[in-house]
Amino acid sequence: MDFLENMQQRRSCRSFDPALPVSREELLKIVEAGRLTPSGCNSQPWKFIVVDSAEAKEKLCDAIVLENGSTGAPWRHQVAAFIILVEQPAKVMQCVADYYQTTQRFAQGDVGAACMNMCHEAFSLGLDTCIIGMSDQTKMEKYFNIPQGREVRMVLAIGHAANNPPMNKVRKALDEVCSFNSWD
Amino acid sequence: MDFLENMQQRRSCRSFDPALPVSREELLKIVEAGRLTPSGCNSQPWKFIVVDSAEAKEKLCDAIVLENGSTGAPWRHQVAAFIILVEQPAKVMQCVADYYQTTQRFAQGDVGAACMNMCHEAFSLGLDTCIIGMSDQTKMEKYFNIPQGREVRMVLAIGHAANNPPMNKVRKALDEVCSFNSWD
Repeated sequence: MDFLENMQQRRSCRSFDPALPVSREELLKIVEAGRLTPSGCNSQPWKFIVVDSAEAKEKLCDAIVLENGSTGAPWRHQVAAFIILVEQPAKVMQCVADYYQTTQRFAQGDVGAACMNMCHEAFSLGLDTCIIGMSDQTKMEKYFNIPQGREVRMVLAIGHAANNPPMNKVRKALDEVCSFNSWD
Repeated sequence: MDFLENMQQRRSCRSFDPALPVSREELLKIVEAGRLTPSGCNSQPWKFIVVDSAEAKEKLCDAIVLENGSTGAPWRHQVAAFIILVEQPAKVMQCVADYYQTTQRFAQGDVGAACMNMCHEAFSLGLDTCIIGMSDQTKMEKYFNIPQGREVRMVLAIGHAANNPPMNKVRKALDEVCSFNSWD
């Protein structure tokens, strides 16, 4: 199957079968896809925290509920394992840091690419994923011993989908997101 | 070939054969991989400008040289085609905008994921790519009619590698980027 067919078939999963586990071997292959991701100046500005123990999963499920009670993952207790993606200080070329007045110009995009690659590797292992964007930074730092201010950019939920129909993929039309040789 | 093998084999290309073109059909498949990318709140906060005319490529080659003359792509004139990835204002759920005090919390990661997927699709078509991070925003807006302040996040160079040995992939060790159930 070529890559585009894979992308057409992959869906974000929001209903997991809590009875089906994910192995450390599988999780390490998923982490490997993140580790191999290209990044700006090859800075690899990421740390991946695999969350697969019952105790740590309980904490994670609490940390992805915000103060006001809202969460992007009401189904979080069904999930077999999570990976927390933390943005790290990036070592970039001096000309980049000088021009953009920050070392982190590329870091968010790099972490996003790493997370995408983890999704693809999980898909190729027959696993399902959902990227969770919102989390409570203060709880994350406390529960997982994350150094203060190192931002959790996303949390990847990994498991086996419950047996329900996949959602249709809804995307903007090609001409809304693409043009040739000029913006319009 | 499974996804991880693909990742192990894919290299950023910094030496292209200028004699070998890339077709519109290929470019549209690459754009499609970007278009299908998942994003925070499905906001799809991107616009892709395909640059494949001689005139537009000339402008692009100028816009990825900074004021002080530095560039991440000294090999830019060999490249068959480029895709400019512009970050767009994101329509996200109100609770996200309220919590992070911005609509763009996820946008940079989303654009990074779209660019990664374009690299994978190019690889599956037998094409080579390099992600270029630095560009002159003012020139980009002027040359490509990009609305003021819509940030060019990256430029993807696409073509066929010249026949030279691939570089080794250099990555941090697993234990430097990954831990289990806690930061350390």
